[in-house]
Amino acid sequence: MPQHPPAEPGMPEDEIDTPALVLDLDAFEHNLDSMAALLAPTGAKLRAHAKTHKSPVIALQQMRRGAVGQCVQKVAEAEALAWGGVPDILVSNEVVAPRKLARLLALSGISRVAMCVDGEAGVALAEQAAGAAGRRLRLLVEIDAGAGRCGVQPGPEAVALARRIAGSPHLEFAGLQAYHGRAQHQRRPEERAASIASAVEHTRRTVEQLRQQGLDCPIVGGGGTGTFLHEASSGVFTEIQAGSYAFMDADYAANHDAPPFRQALFLLTQVMSTPRAGLVVVDAGHKAAPTDSGFPQVWQRPGLRYAGASDEHGNIAVEGGAAPKLGETLRLVPGHCDPTVDRFDWYVGVRRGRVECLWPVAARGGMA
Amino acid sequence: MPQHPPAEPGMPEDEIDTPALVLDLDAFEHNLDSMAALLAPTGAKLRAHAKTHKSPVIALQQMRRGAVGQCVQKVAEAEALAWGGVPDILVSNEVVAPRKLARLLALSGISRVAMCVDGEAGVALAEQAAGAAGRRLRLLVEIDAGAGRCGVQPGPEAVALARRIAGSPHLEFAGLQAYHGRAQHQRRPEERAASIASAVEHTRRTVEQLRQQGLDCPIVGGGGTGTFLHEASSGVFTEIQAGSYAFMDADYAANHDAPPFRQALFLLTQVMSTPRAGLVVVDAGHKAAPTDSGFPQVWQRPGLRYAGASDEHGNIAVEGGAAPKLGETLRLVPGHCDPTVDRFDWYVGVRRGRVECLWPVAARGGMA
Repeated sequence: MPQHPPAEPGMPEDEIDTPALVLDLDAFEHNLDSMAALLAPTGAKLRAHAKTHKSPVIALQQMRRGAVGQCVQKVAEAEALAWGGVPDILVSNEVVAPRKLARLLALSGISRVAMCVDGEAGVALAEQAAGAAGRRLRLLVEIDAGAGRCGVQPGPEAVALARRIAGSPHLEFAGLQAYHGRAQHQRRPEERAASIASAVEHTRRTVEQLRQQGLDCPIVGGGGTGTFLHEASSGVFTEIQAGSYAFMDADYAANHDAPPFRQALFLLTQVMSTPRAGLVVVDAGHKAAPTDSGFPQVWQRPGLRYAGASDEHGNIAVEGGAAPKLGETLRLVPGHCDPTVDRFDWYVGVRRGRVECLWPVAARGGMA
Repeated sequence: MPQHPPAEPGMPEDEIDTPALVLDLDAFEHNLDSMAALLAPTGAKLRAHAKTHKSPVIALQQMRRGAVGQCVQKVAEAEALAWGGVPDILVSNEVVAPRKLARLLALSGISRVAMCVDGEAGVALAEQAAGAAGRRLRLLVEIDAGAGRCGVQPGPEAVALARRIAGSPHLEFAGLQAYHGRAQHQRRPEERAASIASAVEHTRRTVEQLRQQGLDCPIVGGGGTGTFLHEASSGVFTEIQAGSYAFMDADYAANHDAPPFRQALFLLTQVMSTPRAGLVVVDAGHKAAPTDSGFPQVWQRPGLRYAGASDEHGNIAVEGGAAPKLGETLRLVPGHCDPTVDRFDWYVGVRRGRVECLWPVAARGGMA
């Protein structure tokens, strides 16, 4: 059952049904413009990660500012973007289920699609699906750039896999995926710089070895909101996969010397109980505000601290200043923007205190 | 955009699109039957909590086994149940937003509804909304039974609020809400018994004081999966609000001397990368498997441990036995069933290895 919209255009912010996902449109547009300006002198292009926003509406705004396409993390996200008019989509992840491969190949009639592989068995599955569909599937070889998750080892292992792809009539070798996830949230800028310097060297070496074998890398992709300037200025990476920069969150705000993005995404919540001095209870618990990167923070209310979450309750400790009143709304800064967005069906776009627009979170939810 | 179903009836379990919410129907039915059998001798009735299952299909199966109705935690859940044919719904929580109160009152034409209050300001808002709608609204007074979250203090404070409700032409005093959330996950049975003994005494005293004022309590509600036998046998509580018992999860399984419910809810996930010895990566990360109560556990595969989550990746450490192969599916036991269900649009009901049914998670998502 789709959710009814929590607001109407023109409504004041404090009348929005809570909990709701509120997008500060001025801050959001600032972030999109800033990223375009930061990348322009580097030569690297943005392929923004849609696992953050899950919205073709937002994807197309990024592309109007120069993004060459979008990354997604799963086939359901690729579908939502393709059906919403996004022309170039990379699944920056492995896909192995035959039903999902068939769905991805079915999109290639309306969008340019690609996906990642990190082993011979995955290539064989992709080849079989592409052959059955009668379409060529574009594949990137994912290398482990230091994150220790998916990916083959840089160098000869990656080159062998690329040769295997290039030799198949059903497949096309489209480049390298080299995302270093763990580096994004290293707090000190010199840690992040060191991590990415190592990732760049592994990637550069692999690109050179591929070239020696006559294999070009149209795409060398990686980089997130925490590190993208390093990848973009490396001369090796051609595409930057940052996503969170459009919204930001408490976790990225804790990075030192972060790029100048503003907090644009908020969880609007309402005080629904004021049981005693020092505590108010709001209607955003951990179902609305996932806690994988810690609790959300109360925006611009220094005496208030989000101190505990149950399913549909958030405990706000009142540690200074006036307690908010029953029915009052508060903006929360999500601990982690990606899973928070994924909880909702609608963005409520707000400017100067009024609702300006509603955009669907088209690819929300735990779908395959 | 609603999600397409991840399976078809008759399909083998390992062909279900992953990640998916799989319900072992034999275990699920065993749990529903067991709860009915456990409560029968106590005299207390079940009003199962639908914040766990969010499904009128499941609610009606509970009611066919004797449940008198359902609890929900928010108006959107009440709507999904009422529209799905559930005749008696208690919002076991405070509602203060005028738009939400109007929506709840609008349901009272098709279902018997009630909600909780825990202060004079909340009663005034409910009274105003009921007056405007031209309907009487049934209210329970929530008391703080020891959880330290919402609720007025037991005794005179609760009695004063009940009198205020009973004196209003637009409201009806329907009883007490006395849920002790923190007690549910105390690991040792004697801790749980002591917590509920205290909650029962506070509640008994308040019920007696109300009676002295001529106020009956048609509903005295509380109890969860961790403690319900104590409330049910107290002679004070009339309705038990357990929800998780139908599914169970890793957190409840860690309680000592838990009632004999079986693990019925699983997150089905697929191995999508086998990057090196000792590690396989599955497609259920923290977006599919919320981590508020810890990581999920791998079901009946003793050598495998879910060791880390990112958005769409789960790292499974292989610490013994054979590593699962690329494409293999694994059942995970959710850390916490409620937020896990809330991530999905569909239950896939499975019996003897085959898909038997698909049921929508009608009230899923972070809606208001």
